Amino acid sequence: MNAEIIAVGSELLLGQIANTNATFISSQLSEIGINVYFHSVIGDNGGRLKKAIEIAESRADLIIFSGGLGPTKDDLTKETLAEHLKVPLVYDEKALETIERFFQNQGRTMTENNRKQALVLEGSDVLPNHHGLAPGMMLQKGGRTYILLPGPPKELEPMFQFEAKPRLVSLISQGGVILSHVLRFYGIGEAELETKIQHILDAQTNPTIAPLASDGEVMLRITAKANSKDEAWQFIHEKKQEILAIVGKYNYGVDDDTLASKTVEMLLYHKLTISAAESLTAGLFLSELAEIPGVSGALVGGMVTYTKEAKMNQLGVPNEILDQHGIVSSECAEHMAKCVREKFGTDIGIGLTGAAGPDPHDGQPAGTIWIGIAIGDDVVTRKLQLSGFRNTNRLRTVKYTLSYLIRLLEEKGYKKV
Amino acid sequence: MNAEIIAVGSELLLGQIANTNATFISSQLSEIGINVYFHSVIGDNGGRLKKAIEIAESRADLIIFSGGLGPTKDDLTKETLAEHLKVPLVYDEKALETIERFFQNQGRTMTENNRKQALVLEGSDVLPNHHGLAPGMMLQKGGRTYILLPGPPKELEPMFQFEAKPRLVSLISQGGVILSHVLRFYGIGEAELETKIQHILDAQTNPTIAPLASDGEVMLRITAKANSKDEAWQFIHEKKQEILAIVGKYNYGVDDDTLASKTVEMLLYHKLTISAAESLTAGLFLSELAEIPGVSGALVGGMVTYTKEAKMNQLGVPNEILDQHGIVSSECAEHMAKCVREKFGTDIGIGLTGAAGPDPHDGQPAGTIWIGIAIGDDVVTRKLQLSGFRNTNRLRTVKYTLSYLIRLLEEKGYKKV
Repeated sequence: MNAEIIAVGSELLLGQIANTNATFISSQLSEIGINVYFHSVIGDNGGRLKKAIEIAESRADLIIFSGGLGPTKDDLTKETLAEHLKVPLVYDEKALETIERFFQNQGRTMTENNRKQALVLEGSDVLPNHHGLAPGMMLQKGGRTYILLPGPPKELEPMFQFEAKPRLVSLISQGGVILSHVLRFYGIGEAELETKIQHILDAQTNPTIAPLASDGEVMLRITAKANSKDEAWQFIHEKKQEILAIVGKYNYGVDDDTLASKTVEMLLYHKLTISAAESLTAGLFLSELAEIPGVSGALVGGMVTYTKEAKMNQLGVPNEILDQHGIVSSECAEHMAKCVREKFGTDIGIGLTGAAGPDPHDGQPAGTIWIGIAIGDDVVTRKLQLSGFRNTNRLRTVKYTLSYLIRLLEEKGYKKV
Repeated sequence: MNAEIIAVGSELLLGQIANTNATFISSQLSEIGINVYFHSVIGDNGGRLKKAIEIAESRADLIIFSGGLGPTKDDLTKETLAEHLKVPLVYDEKALETIERFFQNQGRTMTENNRKQALVLEGSDVLPNHHGLAPGMMLQKGGRTYILLPGPPKELEPMFQFEAKPRLVSLISQGGVILSHVLRFYGIGEAELETKIQHILDAQTNPTIAPLASDGEVMLRITAKANSKDEAWQFIHEKKQEILAIVGKYNYGVDDDTLASKTVEMLLYHKLTISAAESLTAGLFLSELAEIPGVSGALVGGMVTYTKEAKMNQLGVPNEILDQHGIVSSECAEHMAKCVREKFGTDIGIGLTGAAGPDPHDGQPAGTIWIGIAIGDDVVTRKLQLSGFRNTNRLRTVKYTLSYLIRLLEEKGYKKV
């Protein structure tokens, strides 16, 4: 079964809201093994919608509409589909009752266009709306399945999940299962990773493997089709082991993991506490950790020392170190990490200093960054030379520090969780 | 000119990310009077993409592609369009140099598929990519305009705004001029702002006025068409004065201003220094300031005091205050602001404490936040009661603190710049 999702609404074409309904429906469909090949967005215009339906019928056997079921003249979805399929619209008694009761309860007068919301395609399976007035519909005709859903995500999401999806599952259950699993990598580029596993990519059939890159991270999405969930997981697992045997050292997590969430999980699991002294990142490192609920078991605090004076007077980096080696130096990062760890009494201390850009800083070119990590009495430093814009450099520094910390902890025998 | 936006990427059809690129491009196109009639999303599949291009050509004269310009085999957009239009792909020397330099700077090996990113459609206007490696393209052929943009929003958005859009404007203006100006507001809801200027919105013809809301901010975009730039600015200026006479007190900036950039401008202009002590935001406040180049003239540093102990021992908030009033209290925020200002010797000190969520913190429900601002010896506090998710609450706290600080500084006679 191949699906197309048609979202109807001029507000989408004006760029006022994103088509998150298509995103939601797609992720739900991929769970049950239905391929989505197209999303379309059409304005509130009957003529263009009619043509879009014809195109969808030429390339999909499941067509899902979102939006255009409301009471106004702009809401044309069911009217257009009714005309196109030559199926009359009839009042659904239950929906009409719901609408009448709603207006009674509100003490408001029901107008004729409110009644319009209770009109449904004759012969369709009416999907009740527990969060709004417009019911949904599911109709089989000419070998195709049409599903109509209301536009507001608060109404669409539960209706799809609890009404439409179970009906689709029973419709297709003679078919198989599709499952996806995402492997997340840091510290390796998309092209380099692909080159390393080129033979696996070239030989892919089932599971398929799709590389994705964003924000300096690379992901591989492994998707398997099988007769059962267990079999699909087995396929995915085997392919995963094959991939990790080659590029496992860059793999930090799976699915919805982030570098920050993996770091926090490791810290909490091994009961390690952390603090940081930040210059160029100015709080971004600690703030990324603080995005993770439960971090208070590991995150004690830290310092933002933006000026030289703050580094000396507040943090206690020795004056001589700064004068001899400069602010953007291995020695400065090392002392920042050591000092903050001691000051806050934590197991781990992080020191970040550098020239974020656009200008050079303390004689060092933009993009020169030093990372210091103190684990117990052991301090290591590493240099980054980045070439992005100021805030990309700041964010990359944070991500790189997290991936470097995870690797150091592993080397010290703290296993990943 | 009627546009269709084609987003290419299987991750969109699997529901892993939403098509926010189409949203961004649509809102930008609506500013310059170009109608968008269709959005389409296609997977990484050459055959289906080719058919989608044919459909788009039958109904649009401006076709904008996002995604599929990367180095991998899945990236097929320009290859498919080249074949379809019978236009060869040629190496763009500038793009090739950028890619080579990038790999040299990173000390990494450039692979053959990285070179592929420098291939462009022959005869196209190459759009430079200042935030990534794949250049964009704009090509006129057969009476149609094709624009190809990279998929990552960080690359696509500036490329569209600063490279593609000006070219489109000169293409469609033919002597006339279209200019837009955005007014930015904080501390007022979209509905409230609209109600206050309803008579202006109702009477709009040229300039047009479009309200937009995002991340707790409200914007008004004023767009004027005229025979000259001067005339267009005159139209915009008059409308702006009319609007600000009513809601001027919520207006903090224009166009690309952010709360952080406006704050930093004010601090630098008035030679004021700032520090912050952060609990729930854990560095996010200072980090937002540090996004602005040149901030080192104002930002000294600060502390992240996540635990109670850090607040007492590192920052110096008196034990009795914490015991008597709790961590999430006016008194705690007040002392955090005072202590950090004294410690770092700055003109302004900020103290942020609260329950970010999802759980209550120190007996206070999630979303309860106290902001303390010390300007000289004067300290004020304010409570926020937010109802969002953890990280929305943290970001709102930062934005609210910035807008509150701007207003306090104005009240003290420091004028906005």
